[in-house]
Amino acid sequence: MSRIKETLNSIRACDPSFYKAAQKRLDNLTKPQASLGKLEEFAARVVAITEKMEPTLEKKAIFTFAGDHGVAEEGVSAFPKEVTPQMVFNFLGGGAGINVLARHVGADVMVIDIGVDFDFEGVEGLAHKKVVMGTRNIRKGPAMTRAEAIRCIEVGIELADEYAGRGYQIFGTGDMGIANTTPSSAIAAVFTKRPVEEVTGRGTGISDHAFRDKVWVIEDALKVNKPDPKDPLDVLSKVGGTEIAGIAGLILGASAKRIPVVIDGFISTAGALIAHELEPMTKDYTFAAHTSVERGHWIMLERMDLTPILNLNLRLGEGTGAALGISMIEAGVKIYNEMATFGEAGVSERQDSEVPAESKGA
Amino acid sequence: MSRIKETLNSIRACDPSFYKAAQKRLDNLTKPQASLGKLEEFAARVVAITEKMEPTLEKKAIFTFAGDHGVAEEGVSAFPKEVTPQMVFNFLGGGAGINVLARHVGADVMVIDIGVDFDFEGVEGLAHKKVVMGTRNIRKGPAMTRAEAIRCIEVGIELADEYAGRGYQIFGTGDMGIANTTPSSAIAAVFTKRPVEEVTGRGTGISDHAFRDKVWVIEDALKVNKPDPKDPLDVLSKVGGTEIAGIAGLILGASAKRIPVVIDGFISTAGALIAHELEPMTKDYTFAAHTSVERGHWIMLERMDLTPILNLNLRLGEGTGAALGISMIEAGVKIYNEMATFGEAGVSERQDSEVPAESKGA
Repeated sequence: MSRIKETLNSIRACDPSFYKAAQKRLDNLTKPQASLGKLEEFAARVVAITEKMEPTLEKKAIFTFAGDHGVAEEGVSAFPKEVTPQMVFNFLGGGAGINVLARHVGADVMVIDIGVDFDFEGVEGLAHKKVVMGTRNIRKGPAMTRAEAIRCIEVGIELADEYAGRGYQIFGTGDMGIANTTPSSAIAAVFTKRPVEEVTGRGTGISDHAFRDKVWVIEDALKVNKPDPKDPLDVLSKVGGTEIAGIAGLILGASAKRIPVVIDGFISTAGALIAHELEPMTKDYTFAAHTSVERGHWIMLERMDLTPILNLNLRLGEGTGAALGISMIEAGVKIYNEMATFGEAGVSERQDSEVPAESKGA
Repeated sequence: MSRIKETLNSIRACDPSFYKAAQKRLDNLTKPQASLGKLEEFAARVVAITEKMEPTLEKKAIFTFAGDHGVAEEGVSAFPKEVTPQMVFNFLGGGAGINVLARHVGADVMVIDIGVDFDFEGVEGLAHKKVVMGTRNIRKGPAMTRAEAIRCIEVGIELADEYAGRGYQIFGTGDMGIANTTPSSAIAAVFTKRPVEEVTGRGTGISDHAFRDKVWVIEDALKVNKPDPKDPLDVLSKVGGTEIAGIAGLILGASAKRIPVVIDGFISTAGALIAHELEPMTKDYTFAAHTSVERGHWIMLERMDLTPILNLNLRLGEGTGAALGISMIEAGVKIYNEMATFGEAGVSERQDSEVPAESKGA
């Protein structure tokens, strides 16, 4: 717990003077002011986060946390539980979606066993950080003890510290865990105080019957556990998951180390919400990679005042959206670093300030 | 003209059986079906466009067409006209936005002088394809002769043929030309039959006064020239521009050669609309990279039934949005090519077909 407290205490809000200094440079590049839209915002945010006037994002890491969920026994998932360890092996073999997209954007993938119900002893290439052999069924009682939840968060913080020390400059979050939309919806319901059915996903082709069952499972979990929204660790331990906790810890650690962290979809956003409820200033360090059709996702992003970068109808998880989001942020930072100024390129500036910038030849 | 006719005659609609074959492979990869959303659609479209079951997009080219506009003398742009050649030199020097983003996504940039009012004789690294020394002022008469417009389209077709022959697998379009949103809005108004003010951009901070003036200029241009919407070459020559014509030609050539072509923002979309009015099947080969706040942009995309990939508030042009769009399409193609199947990875498939795919651990 002292590790978490220490981390929370070292998170500060970003200094607005860095945004201004970054925008000053951006406004002097050979383009109409603000014409690269969000790319410019990304660059200014990275300057403010890192407090470096010439930041780069060459070393990129995506952390894919894997954990199992006792609630899978309620039949809330379309896939059998053994898929969690099978997909861990797929990640290690390089054949999963996250491997492909991380390669595409030049990021390294770190696969973390934080709570898979499978013995990975001796398996190479995996970060062995197992806290539990899967959580317990939240319909019947708490997912974890408070101590287990704290340990999971500490794993995330430790990874952030380790990879910051190794020179990584941006992090992405990812998840793998059969049934993990169920605890994510539970977390969303607790903090946003919305009815469960409003924060629970129907996905593609879900039957009314299956949706109703999933909502009931989550409603039961909230009744049985009575998680306290004023105590994020209580919520996390009672209705959360190990990978969600690891993601929350990674975000806390990244925020403390002033490293931008890009969250993936619904499950990562639940982790970000835990981090946000522990320390709202984490928002300054967090980028939301993408949005999905999940209403619960939007509601959580709104609570944190985060605007998603992409909208590609992704719903795979693993960190796949985060990989693509990282590439957009890096594009912004490269614009900031590599474009010529009007003076350097010998390009004339605006002839007046009344005519719209958009009418410049493009 | 025979070159254009020949090209139009060789454009065919994409064969739906290729989409189906591609989706079959996508559905067998280690992810819930359709969970990579638009990335999967991009891959299936590239398979259908190229008619190759294992397409790759390693060789990428962005064509930035530069031309001047006589209508600049009406004061419709915030920047002086000499910025067009100055930016051409900036492109050649590698310091412009398109250079940075093309490098980021691994694309080559081809800069084409198709109608700049500047003598580039002897300048290296530039494609010397000048048709006119800038267009004439459309408020007073036609921008070009019909023969000049045809020649500009042929330039685009020739470039598509040349780069297809050199092994390029995907094209992006870009533009540079002070005042070129004015002819683009004129083209949008003619084909969509919307009032000029509905397809004319206000951009950021445009005054009511400047906006009204720009609308008047375009309304005058339409009155003076009376472009015939049933004759796209008439519209292009009377109220278009050389770079818009070059982009239209590149899209026609790409469609004939079965090469996916990614259009950038407002000006490129006006070029795509010319190509579309000449041959609506070009739509099958065209991806819209991004959308902007320009209402006219949306209205043109709707006419072509194209859905933009990104929404990053870009309004620079040059091909910057196309570069980022290409990277998203390439991500989809890599997913298609590189992900493991359930069988290859030893991952169990869905246990039933009633439960939602989205509840799978991610």
